[in-house]
Amino acid sequence: MQNFDYSIPTKIYFGKGQIEKLSKIAAFGNRVLLVYGGGSIKKNGIYDKVTEILSENGIEYFELSGVEPNPRVETVEKGAQICRENHIDAVLAVGGGSSIDCAKVVAAAAKYDGPAWDLVLDGSKIKEALPITAVLTLAATGSEMEQYAVITNFATNEKLDAASELLNPAFSILDPTYTYSVSKRQTASGTADIISHVLEVYFTREKDAFLQARLCEAVLKTCIKYGPVALAEPDNYEARANLMWAGSLAINGLLSYGSDVPWSVHPMQHILAAYYDITHGEGLAILTPVWMEKVLSDETVEKFAEYGRNVWGISPHKETEEIAKLSIEKTRAFFAAMGLPKTLREVGIGEDKLDALAEMAERVEKDLQETYVPLTAADVLDIYKKAL
Amino acid sequence: MQNFDYSIPTKIYFGKGQIEKLSKIAAFGNRVLLVYGGGSIKKNGIYDKVTEILSENGIEYFELSGVEPNPRVETVEKGAQICRENHIDAVLAVGGGSSIDCAKVVAAAAKYDGPAWDLVLDGSKIKEALPITAVLTLAATGSEMEQYAVITNFATNEKLDAASELLNPAFSILDPTYTYSVSKRQTASGTADIISHVLEVYFTREKDAFLQARLCEAVLKTCIKYGPVALAEPDNYEARANLMWAGSLAINGLLSYGSDVPWSVHPMQHILAAYYDITHGEGLAILTPVWMEKVLSDETVEKFAEYGRNVWGISPHKETEEIAKLSIEKTRAFFAAMGLPKTLREVGIGEDKLDALAEMAERVEKDLQETYVPLTAADVLDIYKKAL
Repeated sequence: MQNFDYSIPTKIYFGKGQIEKLSKIAAFGNRVLLVYGGGSIKKNGIYDKVTEILSENGIEYFELSGVEPNPRVETVEKGAQICRENHIDAVLAVGGGSSIDCAKVVAAAAKYDGPAWDLVLDGSKIKEALPITAVLTLAATGSEMEQYAVITNFATNEKLDAASELLNPAFSILDPTYTYSVSKRQTASGTADIISHVLEVYFTREKDAFLQARLCEAVLKTCIKYGPVALAEPDNYEARANLMWAGSLAINGLLSYGSDVPWSVHPMQHILAAYYDITHGEGLAILTPVWMEKVLSDETVEKFAEYGRNVWGISPHKETEEIAKLSIEKTRAFFAAMGLPKTLREVGIGEDKLDALAEMAERVEKDLQETYVPLTAADVLDIYKKAL
Repeated sequence: MQNFDYSIPTKIYFGKGQIEKLSKIAAFGNRVLLVYGGGSIKKNGIYDKVTEILSENGIEYFELSGVEPNPRVETVEKGAQICRENHIDAVLAVGGGSSIDCAKVVAAAAKYDGPAWDLVLDGSKIKEALPITAVLTLAATGSEMEQYAVITNFATNEKLDAASELLNPAFSILDPTYTYSVSKRQTASGTADIISHVLEVYFTREKDAFLQARLCEAVLKTCIKYGPVALAEPDNYEARANLMWAGSLAINGLLSYGSDVPWSVHPMQHILAAYYDITHGEGLAILTPVWMEKVLSDETVEKFAEYGRNVWGISPHKETEEIAKLSIEKTRAFFAAMGLPKTLREVGIGEDKLDALAEMAERVEKDLQETYVPLTAADVLDIYKKAL
């Protein structure tokens, strides 16, 4: 097991009716920036409830709306300006990972004298941030309980993680009923994102982190059980609750402390999204099984077999190699059954984009040197091609 | 899944050499109360290392030594007095759960104008506490990462939990090599304690907390795998590291948030210990299988079968009832293989104590009304008798 420094300071208010705890935001002051996306929170009533509680608590709120699914640095700048001009005391994201990620960097940029993109490129430049809070409406990124924020710069075709202890939300409110109205497509995509977060650290070079591997399997089994239930019965509380909490635990450090490894599939997906703005979970669902086939070898077969036996319940009486291959087939079949795309073509990336894909592969290579199985630009291009 | 408010603020510095992070205690001031037990930390060199780091950082330290395995309220009072007389800025426990529990209540009592036992009886009376820090030397109680402290009052034969958010350590240092010198007996007893902490919440009435049940199984499998390894090879880092981290995660709230239930076996063991000062993990190892047999019924058989299949790997092709019974046999056999006592007689409690046991059963009944399976005084006495 690797050494680690554990710190997960975010408080979570989980469950039906926990929105009432939003009144605790008053501890930070009485001027709040409300950050949200395309307005679905106005349709489902969450916006009304949130603003009602803010008003009841004597809090004046300002708004940054229209945050993009892949939030843009320009939107961050806009939010930071609102904060500076209006002496904002705290930011409150209401939405999924996009709104929360945007709000996090807004909170830091409001306290930074320079372009917000500096802070994305180098989290150590974040020396101060407004308190960050969130009301989660989508089980997916886990941003509600960790210190990362993914921001896209379409000017440079970069989609990068800002990272700082100061970006941990002070508290997040997780009411599973708030995800009842999430579409089938976003439910599937969010589940794929959670699964990918776990797989990124489950496939680690650290062999002695037994406990962490078992914790990973717990979260994976939860996604596999409840993803299809949430699709079939959007109002199933048990399913929505298990997925929501799985999303937070998948990425808050619990699974990676002691068994950390640089991620493999997310970098390949992030650069695709920075060029083509595709849905994050869909990109991951397409790339993950192809990546698995690419890295399956004599050195990794035992780990894949462990995955097959412990997560997919494949009989241990089969041959190791067969279990390993079956585990990949099961992964692909699961994503397909969730209605997720199987190929890049389905999300608009075809053979005609081969030159661009080759360029992306070159650019992402530097991030894949220390991954579970290191990948070259040629390997990445091969994965992209097989995913077409 | 139940609603919950999640807060696990303790920072953990985990791994070889992490003792260097002890210098961070200087952030709280330069006068520290060092709390420890019977002196084993002097034999294994940890005391020297700790005091060296304190001195290097300009910290003056005072000592409360000789903390008992079941720490007594009189010792807490003594520590609180040292704090008051010497204007202590922070407490530092170096040891296992006993030292940490004692240090926690010392930290609160130092800021309380009244008897320390008040704070144990009613944690809401804890309005302030000195910062609490710990260097852990035993994988067992999990006190290093949670807000409880168990203190014994032999004057009233009570062993009770003090509980307060203010008792969460600010940070704890967990170096698995510090547990290499733990005796076989204490290693086995600590492992039984961890297992019991998990079982107390695994057997819950909450049926929809699927994720939490799987997380419980992850920790249980870790104990079952590494307990025997640590006994056979005390210097096995992998085993000591997995057990140490399992001990913290077993009780810090991760497993119980969303699936909470009042504990069953700990109350029966605590009252035994308050009368007879028996080793905590040994008492739990004796009582747990007997309790399981007592509560196994048509209503609980499916949960026991789940335990048998998922934790002990019993073939799902067997009959449910057989799997359930086998799961209890496996539990008992595991404790026996760890060298733990199987009967109360082995720890000095025989038939001649039946009157006292009946009195204990009467006293503990009130704590067992809302447990997984509620128990009457007659049930408890029956468990004690079968455990003789």
